[in-house]
Amino acid sequence: MAQEGITSVQNPLVKRLHQLLERKGREAQGRFLIEGAHLVEEALKSGAEVTTILYDAERDMDAALRRELGNHAREVQVVAASDAVLAKLSETKSPQGIVAEVKRAERSWAEWMQEREATGDGKLLLLLDEIQDPGNLGTILRTAEAAGVDAVVLGKGCVDLYNGKVVRATMGALFRLPVFSRPLPEVADEWKERGGRLLVSTLHEKSISYDAADYAQQTAIVIGNEGRGVSRAMVDRADQLVHIPIYGRAESLNAAVAAGIFVYEAKKKLKDRLS
Amino acid sequence: MAQEGITSVQNPLVKRLHQLLERKGREAQGRFLIEGAHLVEEALKSGAEVTTILYDAERDMDAALRRELGNHAREVQVVAASDAVLAKLSETKSPQGIVAEVKRAERSWAEWMQEREATGDGKLLLLLDEIQDPGNLGTILRTAEAAGVDAVVLGKGCVDLYNGKVVRATMGALFRLPVFSRPLPEVADEWKERGGRLLVSTLHEKSISYDAADYAQQTAIVIGNEGRGVSRAMVDRADQLVHIPIYGRAESLNAAVAAGIFVYEAKKKLKDRLS
Repeated sequence: MAQEGITSVQNPLVKRLHQLLERKGREAQGRFLIEGAHLVEEALKSGAEVTTILYDAERDMDAALRRELGNHAREVQVVAASDAVLAKLSETKSPQGIVAEVKRAERSWAEWMQEREATGDGKLLLLLDEIQDPGNLGTILRTAEAAGVDAVVLGKGCVDLYNGKVVRATMGALFRLPVFSRPLPEVADEWKERGGRLLVSTLHEKSISYDAADYAQQTAIVIGNEGRGVSRAMVDRADQLVHIPIYGRAESLNAAVAAGIFVYEAKKKLKDRLS
Repeated sequence: MAQEGITSVQNPLVKRLHQLLERKGREAQGRFLIEGAHLVEEALKSGAEVTTILYDAERDMDAALRRELGNHAREVQVVAASDAVLAKLSETKSPQGIVAEVKRAERSWAEWMQEREATGDGKLLLLLDEIQDPGNLGTILRTAEAAGVDAVVLGKGCVDLYNGKVVRATMGALFRLPVFSRPLPEVADEWKERGGRLLVSTLHEKSISYDAADYAQQTAIVIGNEGRGVSRAMVDRADQLVHIPIYGRAESLNAAVAAGIFVYEAKKKLKDRLS
């Protein structure tokens, strides 16, 4: 690792990386930033394409990360940087002294569907309809990965997957879970043509309780916007409208909590079905 | 309502209310601040003691709130204020032009327990052990109220219930749900003495899956700190250690998501038991 480091915020690499704090820059460069030793370690372990790491030479690098880096010495450019440089590239109040650039992994939805179909296994998908809060989106992805969801599809109107708050809230799940950005009505139509079942979470009068729903071997669950719920186009395509009962006077549940209750119920029912 | 309003941030009322943005001020005065028309409306509807409302005279007051205020005209002081005054009392990026002062409702835990015992009904409690993130705490309270949890107890080390972020994340559940601050080991001992069952969420090797746990008619569920989990004192007191299985490579679930999955499972089992 370099001992001489970058000290100027005018350094061309720093200027380029700084553009990744905005969606426009991330889309132009096809890359995004992550910060914190734990997230960088998770990215490396999960096989994400980490290109550059900037670290605070004055602090000891996290031991687990240093070990993990040993396995990736050739691919990753590791550069010492000053506090000012790291602060410029950080979005958090207490920068952790390490920032990394990661290439976006572009997977093909068509290929993923074909591969999964070839295995003949059950599938559980989560379709997100205009989830706009970054913390919610990140927490939903963290939960989906934990629950063994096979893939997540982000419809139009979702917050950018590579937004720093989203990435941090995923706690690394972003690097392990297949996530696609696709128009949801198209995905729903394709899913149903292939025999998949579509459950749509909504407080519609015809909806049934989540624990009474029929979770088929191929199930996709749609979770909607924090305020407006699921779009009409998806409600119209539902095989079943489902809801989580509200026993108090609350108007709704937080979107990430609702997603967690749904996917764990689905997982339980799918396990019972297979056992 | 006054048409002449407060325009100086040096106004004594404004200076006093400003102290409520800090925990110290809230504790000294026994009051807290809420912002946004919806939250103020919820506070009034729920019978919370709203003492003062400052509103932006340049904006139309939310119609539902105006109607609700009609029922409380005598108790509540309603004062117009300038943008600068409202901004000084707001913690959000986009102030909604309305701020209210609310008295903390101090309920007696002993009385609540006695009342509940007298009814002979089942009880579901949620005990929170050092939940430190304000968004998590607020979302847990929102979820608990929705799930029909009877009361929540905050142990030592939890973030202040009246922190602005907590209050906003509750979406008004704070005004409807009995919440107590008590040392959890004492509450646990008392609960068990009275025949209640204590389930503790932890990834301990002896823990069983949340859906296999025995949810008795009197059940208290303990959820622990975001990083360290539940304290040893509570693990030692558990009747059953329970966990939510992780099917992916995630290390844990978000505390609010975990709480949601637990309380909805408990509610379902308690309903089945009673039906």
